[in-house]
Amino acid sequence: MRFFYFLITLLLTMAATLIWQDKPEYVFAIHGGAGAMSRDKMTPELEAQYRAGLEEALSAGETVLKSGGSAEDAVIAAITLLEDNPLFNAGKGAVLTNAGTAELDASIMSGRTGLAGAIAGVKTIRNPILAARLVMDSSEHVMLTGKGAETFASSHGLKTVKNSYFITPQRQEQLRKVKEEEKASGKHADAGQYDPSGKKFGTVGAVALDRNGNLAAGTSTGGMTNKRYGRVGDAPIIGAGTYANNNTCAVSCTGHGEYFIRNVVAYDLAAMLEYTGKTLEDAANQIIFKKLKTIGGEGGLIAVDKQGNVAMPFNSEGMYRGYLNSKGERMVAIYKD
Amino acid sequence: MRFFYFLITLLLTMAATLIWQDKPEYVFAIHGGAGAMSRDKMTPELEAQYRAGLEEALSAGETVLKSGGSAEDAVIAAITLLEDNPLFNAGKGAVLTNAGTAELDASIMSGRTGLAGAIAGVKTIRNPILAARLVMDSSEHVMLTGKGAETFASSHGLKTVKNSYFITPQRQEQLRKVKEEEKASGKHADAGQYDPSGKKFGTVGAVALDRNGNLAAGTSTGGMTNKRYGRVGDAPIIGAGTYANNNTCAVSCTGHGEYFIRNVVAYDLAAMLEYTGKTLEDAANQIIFKKLKTIGGEGGLIAVDKQGNVAMPFNSEGMYRGYLNSKGERMVAIYKD
Repeated sequence: MRFFYFLITLLLTMAATLIWQDKPEYVFAIHGGAGAMSRDKMTPELEAQYRAGLEEALSAGETVLKSGGSAEDAVIAAITLLEDNPLFNAGKGAVLTNAGTAELDASIMSGRTGLAGAIAGVKTIRNPILAARLVMDSSEHVMLTGKGAETFASSHGLKTVKNSYFITPQRQEQLRKVKEEEKASGKHADAGQYDPSGKKFGTVGAVALDRNGNLAAGTSTGGMTNKRYGRVGDAPIIGAGTYANNNTCAVSCTGHGEYFIRNVVAYDLAAMLEYTGKTLEDAANQIIFKKLKTIGGEGGLIAVDKQGNVAMPFNSEGMYRGYLNSKGERMVAIYKD
Repeated sequence: MRFFYFLITLLLTMAATLIWQDKPEYVFAIHGGAGAMSRDKMTPELEAQYRAGLEEALSAGETVLKSGGSAEDAVIAAITLLEDNPLFNAGKGAVLTNAGTAELDASIMSGRTGLAGAIAGVKTIRNPILAARLVMDSSEHVMLTGKGAETFASSHGLKTVKNSYFITPQRQEQLRKVKEEEKASGKHADAGQYDPSGKKFGTVGAVALDRNGNLAAGTSTGGMTNKRYGRVGDAPIIGAGTYANNNTCAVSCTGHGEYFIRNVVAYDLAAMLEYTGKTLEDAANQIIFKKLKTIGGEGGLIAVDKQGNVAMPFNSEGMYRGYLNSKGERMVAIYKD
């Protein structure tokens, strides 16, 4: 009888160990925007640069998570690099407004505390995601906008730059082309700003599960090329572009922001996990391939749930993305295959 | 046998008629902000003025809905009146920022189309809710901010005013007192902006179910007294302060905005209806009395579902509110009883 109990205990321990091993100790995923990136316009050199940028951001998050750092710190580490990289539409190299300036939005949420921070329409904060974190950590607020957000950030010692720091010749050329297109097509100023060619939008984001089981998500963007009227997309909207909750998942979205706001996409994924018991993959697929696709909402999302599962669905031609976990899995991809 | 079928048909018809009659043809609800309004500070004259303002806004919505008008039009009719009424914290009589100016936010969403519009941080648009509707109806965007939003609104012919139009002596006195309190308590600029005395926040909002079965929700606010840094609360955030979907419900929130953003309150109510099958009342109570109360989130919401049920829970001392329906039910209230 004693041997029988021993056997049962042994089997249970082995089963528990297997399940435990199945859950990675940390998980990290990033995106660099979704859209219709035609392969024929992508040179091997440019693709290599994009991949290198994604790998670098992934590694920055990995370094934090491997050493037991927080999910928030991993998200920040990756996003600041993507903001500094002129290839991606966030921070330096952000797309330009109709006025030829860069106007930046960013947000972050901690699944551990349920706190969040966001800034919208800032022009002088070098790393918008750091300002979003400052709002989360050092204010009673969630969202600060415009000059006020800049005053808050610089009063807390955040690095500011001239707007020209963000502007690259590539984005100026892109703006020129978009304006030409607009002139030729005669579309209204506020009707033609979204172009399914993928030239006009993009975002960067990251989600993390750390060794302590805490989740975090962050998103940063320059918005849409040629944007006017202080337009704000989903990136700085908690629930739309960014959401994290230790009980469910961490989510960062990219795509045609207006659809993501109306569908409250990031929180919808968490709500489906909490209320329907769907798996992360099933819920994420339903949102991206059914709910959004039906209404013409182009884009994708990255998400990690509390068990360490990852989903990275997108309904556009491509999405710059990558993920890794403590079990040694690692990938970076741009297109569907 | 023929008589038996006749009887069955008759009974079914009667039952259907009863059920049909049970669902009102139209429903309308409004709020004028939630907070701790001490009865001892409320004079009978002032209470009568608040009640008259709520009655007037209710009647404006009723006139639209009775004649077969749309849920959106009813929401707009009521909110413009509440914005024009200096008693409520929206439009004229909005609370003042640290700089002594009025900075206004508003949003609207149509449950029929799933479209939404929002503006944040505007200083010269006489009726912010009209600008939000203009964004919804006449742009590809959901959210416009600051001067850009003003340019958009005035280019579409919306009435603008000097910022002084919004400023009342009462709000100037309120700001003076809050600044004195802040000075005396030595609290940080961004820590002491929320005061449970109810002096510092408020919102107006409306939700409607029209004769065609369409839902809509709208919210408008001046935010928090003494606010700084371009702070934006939940009122202009789709999913947080405002949400509407013909498949579920229409919701407008009021209270300590930061908590409502982090909890994605307006959409959470719709998600609970859609995913858990809870009644509107149960879901709304769970959000206001459990989810929000647990984390110290003070406030309330008004909601109407597609069957015409109404919920108006609040966890603060009072909420200016009212509702009516096609069956002749009508109420206006401030405190809990």
